[in-house]
Amino acid sequence: MPQPPDTKPKVGLLLGDPCGIGPELVVKVLVEGAFTSTTDLVVIGDERVLAQEMRRAGVELELQVCDDLDAFDPENPAIRFLEAPVTAVDLQTLPVGTANEIGGRYAMEVLSLALDLAAAGRIDAVTYAPMNKKAMNLAGWHYRDGIDFCTSHLNWDGTVSEFNVLDHLWVARVTSHVPMRQVWEHLTTERVHSIIALLNRSLIASGVEAPRIAVAGYNPHCGEGGLCGTEEIDAIIPAIERAKADGMDVYGPVSADVVYLEARDKGLNGIVAMYHDQCQIANKLLEFDRGFVIHGGSPVPTLTTAHGTAFDIVGTGKANPVPLSRCISTASMIARNRALFDGVSR
Amino acid sequence: MPQPPDTKPKVGLLLGDPCGIGPELVVKVLVEGAFTSTTDLVVIGDERVLAQEMRRAGVELELQVCDDLDAFDPENPAIRFLEAPVTAVDLQTLPVGTANEIGGRYAMEVLSLALDLAAAGRIDAVTYAPMNKKAMNLAGWHYRDGIDFCTSHLNWDGTVSEFNVLDHLWVARVTSHVPMRQVWEHLTTERVHSIIALLNRSLIASGVEAPRIAVAGYNPHCGEGGLCGTEEIDAIIPAIERAKADGMDVYGPVSADVVYLEARDKGLNGIVAMYHDQCQIANKLLEFDRGFVIHGGSPVPTLTTAHGTAFDIVGTGKANPVPLSRCISTASMIARNRALFDGVSR
Repeated sequence: MPQPPDTKPKVGLLLGDPCGIGPELVVKVLVEGAFTSTTDLVVIGDERVLAQEMRRAGVELELQVCDDLDAFDPENPAIRFLEAPVTAVDLQTLPVGTANEIGGRYAMEVLSLALDLAAAGRIDAVTYAPMNKKAMNLAGWHYRDGIDFCTSHLNWDGTVSEFNVLDHLWVARVTSHVPMRQVWEHLTTERVHSIIALLNRSLIASGVEAPRIAVAGYNPHCGEGGLCGTEEIDAIIPAIERAKADGMDVYGPVSADVVYLEARDKGLNGIVAMYHDQCQIANKLLEFDRGFVIHGGSPVPTLTTAHGTAFDIVGTGKANPVPLSRCISTASMIARNRALFDGVSR
Repeated sequence: MPQPPDTKPKVGLLLGDPCGIGPELVVKVLVEGAFTSTTDLVVIGDERVLAQEMRRAGVELELQVCDDLDAFDPENPAIRFLEAPVTAVDLQTLPVGTANEIGGRYAMEVLSLALDLAAAGRIDAVTYAPMNKKAMNLAGWHYRDGIDFCTSHLNWDGTVSEFNVLDHLWVARVTSHVPMRQVWEHLTTERVHSIIALLNRSLIASGVEAPRIAVAGYNPHCGEGGLCGTEEIDAIIPAIERAKADGMDVYGPVSADVVYLEARDKGLNGIVAMYHDQCQIANKLLEFDRGFVIHGGSPVPTLTTAHGTAFDIVGTGKANPVPLSRCISTASMIARNRALFDGVSR
């Protein structure tokens, strides 16, 4: 079996919206330093935003700040900070704790830059502290969600699906930010099969040798054999059969109200859900404080927290860095395994 | 404040499908005897089914068996068993552990009889161990669910909604066994308002003086102000406003993926959900082993377990009687409070 490469993956860490809890999370992650054994981390953004948060938190961290990735001294153990050429933020007037155009633009510009670095092969993965959709809309950003923005920026037109990661369970969804009354229109055999296949190969690419996946139904009690909806018969069951014929270890449909219980009891690796709340209701109940998100199918491993900017607790020191820390360790794992399984994950 | 009546409410307890775990649950509930201080319990069905389960479990219970409610000796402390005039079950050939016509017919006939007794004012509430929809279909029963059967049998055409009860939280839903692609058609202001009002007055009738209720949205993130679905704007918000104008302590819409977290954190009494799995996903994750169901809006207090017949564990002695026991105590509470708040609950 091939061994992972000796060099640590280079993971970009972004502050997210500077008016949210992102800067606090990044400082906490840097202080904790759990990433150092696995990851060649580079923080990307406006160094003054981080410095301000260090002052607020009463923390001193040694940074080396450069505006070029090649300029960092490899012998210097200080935390690398890549100064991004983005619209300058006036710290004195920054409306911290609110959704606003300045925070939205900053987050969007830094994310675009980080994706460009990854696309050019200069970093291996992108992790970002929470951004705020309203703020980014105010700054002229008009995408359905983070994965839509990122994959559009990367000109990627392959199948993508946001994965929510609980402790050991990856959850993909066939539809996401779609009005509920239109969900059924998207539930084609082709689409359901493509998401099963995406989740399967992504789990393999992350190091799970033989993923075991359950597929949720769409209607109450999986449609009761057609008595209460037909999407199971028309699309979901044929998609599962096709995935099985492809050699995947997948089964279903499983009633949405028991699929998480089954996943727990059977130690499954993945669930394919049909719509946003079908998985988000369970995800948030089970792991509100630890969950994170992977942009499944993106050519750049991109990860962020499941929680948002939490404007209501900005400046209180209460933000929990665990989800962001897990993003970094998982990004490293994916990047290392990508080097092993090159091509499998795309 | 008026006091509850001195007499204990008379609650009917039914064995449910005799091929499922119902008989085991009933024997366990009777052995435990937790109901004796609050409830004048009468078991209704075929006494031989109960006797067979007592033999299997190695339990002896003193029963007084009559075929007329008026014939019981009020001084006799033995458990009352009302022999129901239903199609006889041949215990020797009963296909225990399966969904079959015999079990379905038995459950249906006994339930019909118990509802008739309640409608005639001879018992105050009906509780039943699990039935099986497939078995009842085989016996010619063609209703969407238990509440549909019971309220149809009672010729009741008022607003009804199955309530799922977690520890202290009652959850009503605007739609239940409806194909997902048709749910939006049912989300009218009138219907949403009627379910809010039903839950509110049912909670009051059960003894909660000023119920606090959250209403879930329908679309992801409550439709994001119309960007991702319009049912919130068209129906749910107007229904909430109308309920507030009526004096109810209700708010929302709250995103489906956080409404249970809010209910827990704020100690709410009730949630109104829009569709089956929106609440069932959370209900089953939170209280699979304790939850039960109330036929909200029915003129007869009718309660059953949230779990089903569990054919796979019949005869193993593993069935958990807690949900059925909670049905009985809650049925008594509702019946007592109905005597106080007569008219409020209907």
